[in-house]
Amino acid sequence: MSTRIGIMGYGNLGRGVECAIKQNDDMELVAVFTRRDPSTVTILTEGVKVESVDKVLDYQDKIDVMILCGGSATDLPNQTPEYAKYFNVIDSFDTHARIPEHFDAVDKAAKEHDHLACISVGWDPGMFSLNRLYANAILSEGKDYTFWGKGVSQGHSDAIRRIEGVLDARQYTIPVEEALEAVRSGKNPELTTRQKHTRECFVVLKPGADAAKVEEEIKTMPNYFDEYDTTVHFISEEELKRDHNGIPHGGFVIRSGVTGWNKENKHIIEYNLKLDSNPEFTTSVLVCFARAIDRMYKEGQRGCKTVFDIAPAYLTKLTSEELRQTML
Amino acid sequence: MSTRIGIMGYGNLGRGVECAIKQNDDMELVAVFTRRDPSTVTILTEGVKVESVDKVLDYQDKIDVMILCGGSATDLPNQTPEYAKYFNVIDSFDTHARIPEHFDAVDKAAKEHDHLACISVGWDPGMFSLNRLYANAILSEGKDYTFWGKGVSQGHSDAIRRIEGVLDARQYTIPVEEALEAVRSGKNPELTTRQKHTRECFVVLKPGADAAKVEEEIKTMPNYFDEYDTTVHFISEEELKRDHNGIPHGGFVIRSGVTGWNKENKHIIEYNLKLDSNPEFTTSVLVCFARAIDRMYKEGQRGCKTVFDIAPAYLTKLTSEELRQTML
Repeated sequence: MSTRIGIMGYGNLGRGVECAIKQNDDMELVAVFTRRDPSTVTILTEGVKVESVDKVLDYQDKIDVMILCGGSATDLPNQTPEYAKYFNVIDSFDTHARIPEHFDAVDKAAKEHDHLACISVGWDPGMFSLNRLYANAILSEGKDYTFWGKGVSQGHSDAIRRIEGVLDARQYTIPVEEALEAVRSGKNPELTTRQKHTRECFVVLKPGADAAKVEEEIKTMPNYFDEYDTTVHFISEEELKRDHNGIPHGGFVIRSGVTGWNKENKHIIEYNLKLDSNPEFTTSVLVCFARAIDRMYKEGQRGCKTVFDIAPAYLTKLTSEELRQTML
Repeated sequence: MSTRIGIMGYGNLGRGVECAIKQNDDMELVAVFTRRDPSTVTILTEGVKVESVDKVLDYQDKIDVMILCGGSATDLPNQTPEYAKYFNVIDSFDTHARIPEHFDAVDKAAKEHDHLACISVGWDPGMFSLNRLYANAILSEGKDYTFWGKGVSQGHSDAIRRIEGVLDARQYTIPVEEALEAVRSGKNPELTTRQKHTRECFVVLKPGADAAKVEEEIKTMPNYFDEYDTTVHFISEEELKRDHNGIPHGGFVIRSGVTGWNKENKHIIEYNLKLDSNPEFTTSVLVCFARAIDRMYKEGQRGCKTVFDIAPAYLTKLTSEELRQTML
């Protein structure tokens, strides 16, 4: 029997979930819910309804897992605990510092209403978190490193767009190759913010804007850019559309540790991602964890989980026998 | 409360487990069991007994998990089901093709005697298997690649040692850099055995042996070397001891897949290991899974598990709250 999925919110993530469902024949898209006028929202899947969010409760018996595709700043802190009252839910909440309180709110709602939930699913938090955990469990003495990129940072791009005189912008976070190599060599370097990543900005100016002033404002922006070596390129609107239309991302989680009676042996564990589409990869992770949530709910599990609490075998449609035969 | 560990067999793996326990303050070594005369076996940990294997049943109430450190060819197929009658057990059984039958035997014994077991724990099978599973669950359309090395293959070294005229030998398996790069670029190449790995042999001859004949025998050895580009170096016994004394290994698990409505976006997931000591890394994995087995047994779980069946949170001594705060 398929896992019946609802999508709440139809932006990049919602569309990514829709695409991932198409690639998994045991998953079925039941409906897409939107706060917009449903008649203005066109989705890719034929025969599937776009519904107003006001209709969502009509679907309580028709959906196994609701995938919440809102943003972490304002949508998910409210949506995930709210919808956990009516559905099994899963989200990609990625404000690391606020995960504990978000977990508590969702866990309470899910337990009170007899549902199963999973938060903070994607690649960071998500697969990067899992790799930090496994690597720390194995190498109990060592040092962790996370590098991000090369990829588009939505938050930094938005920050540039808010500067006066800027029409549009795209910001790439780039890991510093020498720092990566030092980590991989087992040298356990202490790296400053500046030594780990550089930032490259492609900016389209409004007519008459002062390029030098914009560049200065970017490079000195507190938290976002002032601690980094930042390069600014001014380009045309056409160039931005032509050359910077994608949303690639990726990164590296590396643990460097020691074993042996006298800690004489070094080991490096590295996990890395190169992603053409950040939202589509995130939603591919969401969809396989939605499968797990459906199976674990049917086994009687309730409350809120994270990627740490889910045995990997739940993520695939293969049986345990098939997994042992083909992947172990 | 600590997890009380017994070690069955004191070779490279047994010693590795002993070292890993020293690095984890919630793990306690209770005793080492050997088929040899215990008085001839000296271990590293002060105050811990070496016992004859005949005494093992005296320890049923003193050990939470018995870590079986025998070989996969002849020891573990008998030992793991046998000791699952008396203890919770964990092994690193690595004969991939025989995993299903080994699982069935251990599962039956563990269930009949109310114990919990885990087989095939290490890095391949083990962490590489986990990464194959996660990557396949996320990218349902794609291609898997596993490369091993650079590292010492014990089986291939042994095969060379059996050739007439050979005193000692060490064989390194080396991944072909061009093949790795082609995979990482997302080209999804079809690779032959020869294109993926090369083999490099360091051989010490007996006095009067015919080097050309030995080299020919190595290079044409069926299964072991005939399908590979193999290099043979003849060195002195001193050089072998000085330059090839370690047991390094490692490798790469890569999945290259696509997402998007028209499969237009490529993604690469890579996991790689660089290990100074193959047995010490394997046993570091064993020890954290032994922690999980102890916790899951105390929660009431029985039968045989693999790495696929164990939620990652069980592997560390951190609480779920701590994990969410520090690693998610």
